[in-house]
Amino acid sequence: MPICRFRDAEGNTQFAIYDGSRICPLSSLTDAPVTQAELLAGGSKWLAELPTPTESQWQPAPDQLLPPIDTPEKVICIGLNYRDHAIETGSEIPSEPVVFNKFNTALVGHGEAICLPRVSEQVDYEAELVVVIGKSAKHISADDAMDYVYGYTCGHDVSARDWQKGRPAGQWLLGKSFDTFAPVGPCVVTVGELADPSDVRVKMHLNDEVVQNSTTAQLIFNISELIAHLTKIMTLHPGDLIFTGTPPGVGAARKPPVFLKPGDVCKVEIDGIGTLSNPCVAEQ
Amino acid sequence: MPICRFRDAEGNTQFAIYDGSRICPLSSLTDAPVTQAELLAGGSKWLAELPTPTESQWQPAPDQLLPPIDTPEKVICIGLNYRDHAIETGSEIPSEPVVFNKFNTALVGHGEAICLPRVSEQVDYEAELVVVIGKSAKHISADDAMDYVYGYTCGHDVSARDWQKGRPAGQWLLGKSFDTFAPVGPCVVTVGELADPSDVRVKMHLNDEVVQNSTTAQLIFNISELIAHLTKIMTLHPGDLIFTGTPPGVGAARKPPVFLKPGDVCKVEIDGIGTLSNPCVAEQ
Repeated sequence: MPICRFRDAEGNTQFAIYDGSRICPLSSLTDAPVTQAELLAGGSKWLAELPTPTESQWQPAPDQLLPPIDTPEKVICIGLNYRDHAIETGSEIPSEPVVFNKFNTALVGHGEAICLPRVSEQVDYEAELVVVIGKSAKHISADDAMDYVYGYTCGHDVSARDWQKGRPAGQWLLGKSFDTFAPVGPCVVTVGELADPSDVRVKMHLNDEVVQNSTTAQLIFNISELIAHLTKIMTLHPGDLIFTGTPPGVGAARKPPVFLKPGDVCKVEIDGIGTLSNPCVAEQ
Repeated sequence: MPICRFRDAEGNTQFAIYDGSRICPLSSLTDAPVTQAELLAGGSKWLAELPTPTESQWQPAPDQLLPPIDTPEKVICIGLNYRDHAIETGSEIPSEPVVFNKFNTALVGHGEAICLPRVSEQVDYEAELVVVIGKSAKHISADDAMDYVYGYTCGHDVSARDWQKGRPAGQWLLGKSFDTFAPVGPCVVTVGELADPSDVRVKMHLNDEVVQNSTTAQLIFNISELIAHLTKIMTLHPGDLIFTGTPPGVGAARKPPVFLKPGDVCKVEIDGIGTLSNPCVAEQ
């Protein structure tokens, strides 16, 4: 049961069931307001116990949704995690996960604009499967790691290559953290609902062209290995997001390179989750 | 009027005036509970309007304080920002600020332990002046930047050198983000209370030895320039922290190198703010 988050007519944020074109607010199915903490703690089981929406409880989905997770504490990203993508960027196959992050001020939801900054000429796209953490986790083995996953969403790791690379000390953070550079959504599906996260198709559509098309079977480090690695170092908390890496086909690796321009529309499509669409606009 | 945060006997968190050895809870000076948002919005002026504590309103400061800012959204750090430190690490003087970050799960307060991880043999110390942002800020000029600063605190940018350097793709995040690797405190002083932030002395004491001793006059990029640079890219929010960089004298640059071991005590002392003390323990 895919769950999205939206702003209602009164300006309040609510969670809703999402079927790709319609929403059914959880407030119409339960007596009490539903908090994110309850959703994350309840998992698939809690959702399965909700009554099935009647036809009259559905309403058209708004053009814009909110990021399905509100203010995650961490937006962790894994670099060079598809073998073919590491090769296309001229990088070595990493011997351990490459970990960087985005600030959560970069998050936007489905339908919201990606703002192409005044100070970059090289904004690139990256489609990614995003893991949503469900429980606090530290020193978790790969064998146990999936118990700490709440679900999955689509993510777009927008990247200003001219800020990511070639700057003093080579830190990727700024190039990845411009405001609006972390679209996520449209919805979260819980762990049990995604048939096989180890082989799920991930595509990026740039306007009418499919520019990335691979599956998570190509991941160098799978989700369990990533969680085991991260929790050697830090405590993960409910709502934390992990962008798991991007397949080959990014714009910077094309000949000639392709960078995003105002009017472009990027769509991240992941089988079993949905399609995250975001138009590009120039920063005013 | 330096402000700290502590956990009271009932387990609730409160803000208090802090004089280095005693605290006076704000709840004893005002009718309404004081939130962090109110403190940040009120600035020096709000604090100055509080009644002066009477002798009986003071109480001994607890051995451990909480980080003076609760769950900042961003913990931004500036690398290689003291000229002499850049030189001692063998790095070029950066032509623009080197920006990385820590996750806020790394924050601990005054008196809390720095946990030396099982998986690192090279945990190093770095004393830093930390800026606390007071107002949301985007595209702010250096001339206007100080209007967006709430105050300052002491910070310790604990760094696992064997995770910061020499790993695939060279990202510093993991080496800087182990749990407990971001001690801050003991208190925040507001902008007007620190006589001259452009020339304030910053020291690290490792046990009984002064191992770092410099002033912010050595900063390559000053606070205004850092805020102008960061807000070209991201929106800063109230409570965001900026670790402004560390002076020369870090352990990794010593011959032979010095790394932290269980039983060590690190004290960051900044004139006009106070002393942030944290013992080191081995991770169990």
